[in-house]
Amino acid sequence: MNFGAITSILGHLLIVEAGLMVPSLLVAFFYGSYDWKAILLSIIITGAVGFVMSRVFKYKKDIQIKEGLAIVGFGWILVSIFGALPFIFSNTIPSWIDAFFETVSGFTTTGASIVDNIESFPKGVLFWRSFTHWIGGMGILVFTVALMPMLGIGGFQIYKTESPGPTPDRIVPRVRDTAKILYTIYTSITIIQIILLVLGGMSLYDSALHTFGTVGTGGFGIKAISVGYYQSTYIHLVIGIFMTLCGANFSLHYLLVKGKWREVVRNNELRFYLGTILFSVILIAINIYSPMKYNNFGIALRDSFFQVSSIITTTGYVTVDFDKWPTFSKVILFALMFIGGCAGSTAGGIKNIRIVVLLKSIRREFYRILHPRAVIPIKVDGKVISNNIIAGISSFFALFIFIFIITTMIVSLDGVDFESATSAVASTLGNVGPAFGFAGPSRSYSGFSDLSKFVMSVCMLLGRLEIFTLLILLNPSLWKSEGFNIRLN
Amino acid sequence: MNFGAITSILGHLLIVEAGLMVPSLLVAFFYGSYDWKAILLSIIITGAVGFVMSRVFKYKKDIQIKEGLAIVGFGWILVSIFGALPFIFSNTIPSWIDAFFETVSGFTTTGASIVDNIESFPKGVLFWRSFTHWIGGMGILVFTVALMPMLGIGGFQIYKTESPGPTPDRIVPRVRDTAKILYTIYTSITIIQIILLVLGGMSLYDSALHTFGTVGTGGFGIKAISVGYYQSTYIHLVIGIFMTLCGANFSLHYLLVKGKWREVVRNNELRFYLGTILFSVILIAINIYSPMKYNNFGIALRDSFFQVSSIITTTGYVTVDFDKWPTFSKVILFALMFIGGCAGSTAGGIKNIRIVVLLKSIRREFYRILHPRAVIPIKVDGKVISNNIIAGISSFFALFIFIFIITTMIVSLDGVDFESATSAVASTLGNVGPAFGFAGPSRSYSGFSDLSKFVMSVCMLLGRLEIFTLLILLNPSLWKSEGFNIRLN
Repeated sequence: MNFGAITSILGHLLIVEAGLMVPSLLVAFFYGSYDWKAILLSIIITGAVGFVMSRVFKYKKDIQIKEGLAIVGFGWILVSIFGALPFIFSNTIPSWIDAFFETVSGFTTTGASIVDNIESFPKGVLFWRSFTHWIGGMGILVFTVALMPMLGIGGFQIYKTESPGPTPDRIVPRVRDTAKILYTIYTSITIIQIILLVLGGMSLYDSALHTFGTVGTGGFGIKAISVGYYQSTYIHLVIGIFMTLCGANFSLHYLLVKGKWREVVRNNELRFYLGTILFSVILIAINIYSPMKYNNFGIALRDSFFQVSSIITTTGYVTVDFDKWPTFSKVILFALMFIGGCAGSTAGGIKNIRIVVLLKSIRREFYRILHPRAVIPIKVDGKVISNNIIAGISSFFALFIFIFIITTMIVSLDGVDFESATSAVASTLGNVGPAFGFAGPSRSYSGFSDLSKFVMSVCMLLGRLEIFTLLILLNPSLWKSEGFNIRLN
Repeated sequence: MNFGAITSILGHLLIVEAGLMVPSLLVAFFYGSYDWKAILLSIIITGAVGFVMSRVFKYKKDIQIKEGLAIVGFGWILVSIFGALPFIFSNTIPSWIDAFFETVSGFTTTGASIVDNIESFPKGVLFWRSFTHWIGGMGILVFTVALMPMLGIGGFQIYKTESPGPTPDRIVPRVRDTAKILYTIYTSITIIQIILLVLGGMSLYDSALHTFGTVGTGGFGIKAISVGYYQSTYIHLVIGIFMTLCGANFSLHYLLVKGKWREVVRNNELRFYLGTILFSVILIAINIYSPMKYNNFGIALRDSFFQVSSIITTTGYVTVDFDKWPTFSKVILFALMFIGGCAGSTAGGIKNIRIVVLLKSIRREFYRILHPRAVIPIKVDGKVISNNIIAGISSFFALFIFIFIITTMIVSLDGVDFESATSAVASTLGNVGPAFGFAGPSRSYSGFSDLSKFVMSVCMLLGRLEIFTLLILLNPSLWKSEGFNIRLN
């Protein structure tokens, strides 16, 4: 293991993070908000630590798979620790574990919050909180990769590891170029949504923050009742549609821009994703119409669409308290938490492509019962998927379920009821945000014990990094040292 | 598809079933119970229909895979329909859907009951109800196979299809001989347990019925509060230990009888199964000790052991109302419902061997991340498991979870809460019996709608036949007819 290179790259990462805190500082200045000192102090500390780390070790520039894994795993943890500083220094979230939970929730684009008084937050720190979604959505390390020419094969490893889904594609051959294209699309969508929200009468500040939460599929609300604060169908629809867009594979947006809409329309994963949304929206709208006393089926459809889009894309914005919906609708939402968005999007969860492959492998088993000796390939988008990838997807699914069960056990020690424990874990592991019951849409995660908050922080990181990447760091064989060499020049 | 052979074999099956109702008739006579007429009528109808079916068609004696599948699928449905007759005729369960649910629950060794007044049941029908567990435990078709010399390759197909677990072994080369050995072991365990219970002061009648529920891992109670009625640690321990025994692979019992205890002790699945029990018993005992106000940790251990053994073996007997236990203990029990017993046992659930293989395949994925080109076989008991079998296990796991979710949606339409809906489905799909909340240990399934009862009946059959066997009957390609030929001679 090349510890020198890892430390240096993590140092660069912290410098980038310090730079990404600057917009929040400017916002605090602009609004004359008292939290500018806290943010400035955070920038100085983060930047200084980063500078020292990037300089202290001599190292060879060979970043292999294991270095890539270590950089991603520790990178996310480190960024979350330093990203919590503005909350702690501004005294908005004085508890260290709470601030860590909130920051992990931000960067992993979960949106689960321990804050009960969000409307009293100062403008700068509130901006930073939502901005972490925007940073985490596309991956801060991919951003760093795009900036750093020094990474060779390790660069692709980092990109691969940080990108959601089983087989991330490079849109163009070079990882740096791919990262730049993705960031261009990401930024364009961001700007368009901000403009649309401002046109709907939302203030520029609120529009920006809601957009960060949408395009990053994060979902931190900035009002006590989240997006429900805005009683505007236009705003609900804009955010609802942009959530759906950002839960789709970003390389499809690239194909769309290139005019290759045929490929987009035929994409297996996209079809499954949109089909699941359509199906869920209709079923829930019918189910809630009468018990929730809607006068108008259109409004039931609107609320159903918003919530389905919000949960399947693992955003977590809320317009109505879906915890009060009938059990049938809640079971659907619960299932959507597991499915999540598409590979190569900013969304979390198991990802639609994996569900598609699992369904195809189930169909293959039926065929095999009747034709035991047949060799039947599984195809997605017309291409055969290798057996190793199928095995990887199956193992991922099983591991996801096992971790869900084990974590639920730990969280249930808090004495919360069954529904609250299972849904809080599903919501954090799937990077969704709100759960049912104890951490339902009108409540927060503040009531959980520190142990549960820590465990659910780990869940959010496991969900964002798709489990294997983080857990493999516990494997001792990864840690054979090649020695430290202090840089003297 | 050879419909003639299928109809004939299903006819033989019904004749066997009619014969298996005779002991219940004798019990009714012995106790002078009013239900003898109902049972006699059921025997006549079942036997007559069976006789006609076995005679009406000419057929060739070629039973291939697809015929085997159809026989098993329709055999279980048919046996459940005719097995419901004694309940209907005796007016103990007048509703057809309720009687079907109860009979499916009996044959599939689930033990979920819709009966709210069990202590007022007449002796003959009550005997039949528990006896269905005993019949279903080892598989009525395996029993029929053992009696019928006419089945060639189809006999093994039926045996394979009806035996729980991914790769059923024949203990000895011929299926009929294997079936006979298994039934001998099964009967011996039954007799030993009856004697032990009688020695503990239980009446012979009660001992027999509790033993049928134990060795079949069924769990129909014959008292309103199930085994909790007997305030005897001895009886709790006898039933608890025999449940654990019958949740283990019966071929291990054979090896034990043959003195090959080394092979038994080294068996991967058995180790995992016993380890899971030990771990769960200790965690639950610690968790319930103080909130449930136990004066003695030994008693907490006893209750914890009984319930863990009852749930993991998917029996479903109850000594205490575990629905009142802390959430942590309930989450463990919920997970055990999914794990279930061992392959080749009478228990349901996913089966320990599948969990073992899934865990090994997850470990392989971690290895593959660091060594992408390595070929790593997965071994169980020192033997390499083929990739096709691993794929089958992975698909089974995913399908089990998907069916669990879809069925939960349907059942949740009854308006029950989240915990009740999920646990009732998990309990029926895993062939356990009691659930939490609405169908908790002190209650019954009587409050569910007819739709839910039907869907959960299907779940029980899916669980018992391990899903693929039953669902494949929906595949139209299975149903190409080769014509009916009425037998004229």
